[in-house]
Amino acid sequence: MSFCLREAGELALLDWIRERAGKKDKKGGKGILVAGIGDDAAAFRLAPGKTALATTDMMVEGVHFDTGYFTPYQLGFKLVSVNVSDIYAMGGSPRLAFFTLAAPPETRTAFIKEIFEGVLAALGLYGGRLAGGDLSASPSGLVLDMTVIGDADRIVRRSGARVGDGVFVTGPLGDSACGLVLLREMAAPVRIEKGFQGSHWDKLKKRLRRPLRSLSPETVKPLIERHLMPVAKRPPVGASAMLDISDGLLLDVSRLCKESAVGVRIYEDKIPISDRMRQAAAALGLDPLALAKTGGEDYELLYAAPLSRDRRRNARGILIGEIVPSGLYMVDALGRTKRFRAAGYEHFSG
Amino acid sequence: MSFCLREAGELALLDWIRERAGKKDKKGGKGILVAGIGDDAAAFRLAPGKTALATTDMMVEGVHFDTGYFTPYQLGFKLVSVNVSDIYAMGGSPRLAFFTLAAPPETRTAFIKEIFEGVLAALGLYGGRLAGGDLSASPSGLVLDMTVIGDADRIVRRSGARVGDGVFVTGPLGDSACGLVLLREMAAPVRIEKGFQGSHWDKLKKRLRRPLRSLSPETVKPLIERHLMPVAKRPPVGASAMLDISDGLLLDVSRLCKESAVGVRIYEDKIPISDRMRQAAAALGLDPLALAKTGGEDYELLYAAPLSRDRRRNARGILIGEIVPSGLYMVDALGRTKRFRAAGYEHFSG
Repeated sequence: MSFCLREAGELALLDWIRERAGKKDKKGGKGILVAGIGDDAAAFRLAPGKTALATTDMMVEGVHFDTGYFTPYQLGFKLVSVNVSDIYAMGGSPRLAFFTLAAPPETRTAFIKEIFEGVLAALGLYGGRLAGGDLSASPSGLVLDMTVIGDADRIVRRSGARVGDGVFVTGPLGDSACGLVLLREMAAPVRIEKGFQGSHWDKLKKRLRRPLRSLSPETVKPLIERHLMPVAKRPPVGASAMLDISDGLLLDVSRLCKESAVGVRIYEDKIPISDRMRQAAAALGLDPLALAKTGGEDYELLYAAPLSRDRRRNARGILIGEIVPSGLYMVDALGRTKRFRAAGYEHFSG
Repeated sequence: MSFCLREAGELALLDWIRERAGKKDKKGGKGILVAGIGDDAAAFRLAPGKTALATTDMMVEGVHFDTGYFTPYQLGFKLVSVNVSDIYAMGGSPRLAFFTLAAPPETRTAFIKEIFEGVLAALGLYGGRLAGGDLSASPSGLVLDMTVIGDADRIVRRSGARVGDGVFVTGPLGDSACGLVLLREMAAPVRIEKGFQGSHWDKLKKRLRRPLRSLSPETVKPLIERHLMPVAKRPPVGASAMLDISDGLLLDVSRLCKESAVGVRIYEDKIPISDRMRQAAAALGLDPLALAKTGGEDYELLYAAPLSRDRRRNARGILIGEIVPSGLYMVDALGRTKRFRAAGYEHFSG
């Protein structure tokens, strides 16, 4: 693997990465790495009897993010979260991460180090380790790519949903999409990783249109945090089929249905929407339900599971509908049933 | 993982990838994939008792390659080879590949399919499978990234060289660098994957400066092929330390020495140089020895191994020197010893 950032201190940067990754290692390491950074490939041993998992996710400047409102730390943190979310969505735990970064040659070393700090902080949160990667110059814009390897006692696929299963989500939807709209309004990086002090908010608030200035930092902070630094949700026990909501509820539930060869009926008024999102959406003149149905990047888990008579067992998630033999149906607050179509981002995955 | 290429047929492309990867699967599959493309993560089981390996390598347009002389098929093929080379350099075998591609939105579907055909052809050659990936738009230029997962009965690290070990390479050096110079002279894609007919060569030859036109296609073809579509070398048995020569002999041997905390003495006249490279270098006015010492991307393996009195055992590789307690020494054809310094590309690896 090649490293080509043509700037003073490139070797020092590599030494720094190796040392920082090693330090995290000693603290949070699981002892599975036999050979880490500094060899041709990472060598590791996963627990015997478990199924190994691997997923890849990429973030491209100008496509997935805008450095106008993302700090480098947040980019690194988010890249880990979106990958770990895919591992959790299979019912597994993350173990090792491989991080690839292409950056314009004029990128400051401090900027790159901040990205790595975000990567290492998130890996620490999830219990994974940085085991390798690749650095390169990029003719224009940042490209971040990560592969996370994990394992599971029992994997949960998208294809296991059965007719009669309940359909659940792990938390409120649309917060991230609403946070993105707010960030675009502010058009400035929000250093939420260092707290979100009143004075910082006072400054940012001035960039907002008048109706938005009445929002409190307690309303705004969790919304933009959900977009900038999402935290992946740990998987529930007992799901028959699962995925993470990265591209919006409607599209993602349609994927689960397609892979399981079933249909779904969702009750609009059961879709969880946070009070803060309702408030911000009202100030923005947006429909909170539309944000919840089609807004992506919440990284809540969506899953099917047999309905239990024991309500406490269902309480682990929020029941929003049920699996039916075929068709995609939405029941509105007045009880009217309509078909819906999947809409949003598409992917190629593993 | 998100897919964002905004063009007609994006869904059709994803279906095509899934189907093509599945087909290769049935032919060459090793049965280790539990869940492949179409889920949140790939799920797999490696053979018990083996050590797992993972490596990542990236190719960026304008940095690692120029579409002026690479066909998309060759790009895909080479990306697999450079990753597999890292797995072989650890003494392992490749099993699964994850492929990430960022391409400008105007990229034709046929171009992307050709890249995938190259990826699948190379994976077929090495016995690996495409298990997942990610596709995205790129604001400018192609970015290809791959992670390959493999396994080994016994891994060979960079750090195991002992004083007295012989230093070996698996084949001639400098061919790839010489091929690159020829490609730059021709400044046109050479569809070497479809054979290299006389008529094609006759056309390309006209792009070359006069002294180069006398070169035969038998001389030129293996050189440019080594650059465009390198084939990774299977690892020898019994190496004490090993890496692949991606950034040039001098730099890569210095890495092996650094990780093993030893030195090396290399005999200049033992460094293998192919006749074809000597001929082409002469026509180009380049020093073949300099190409062999610092030219990258040959993907030959460089390794240390105990010297055996049985010459046949040493015959598996080409002996070019020996491990000494410290220092990097080169002995020239007249027997004069000089220190050398590592020079070339640097990396951050695993």
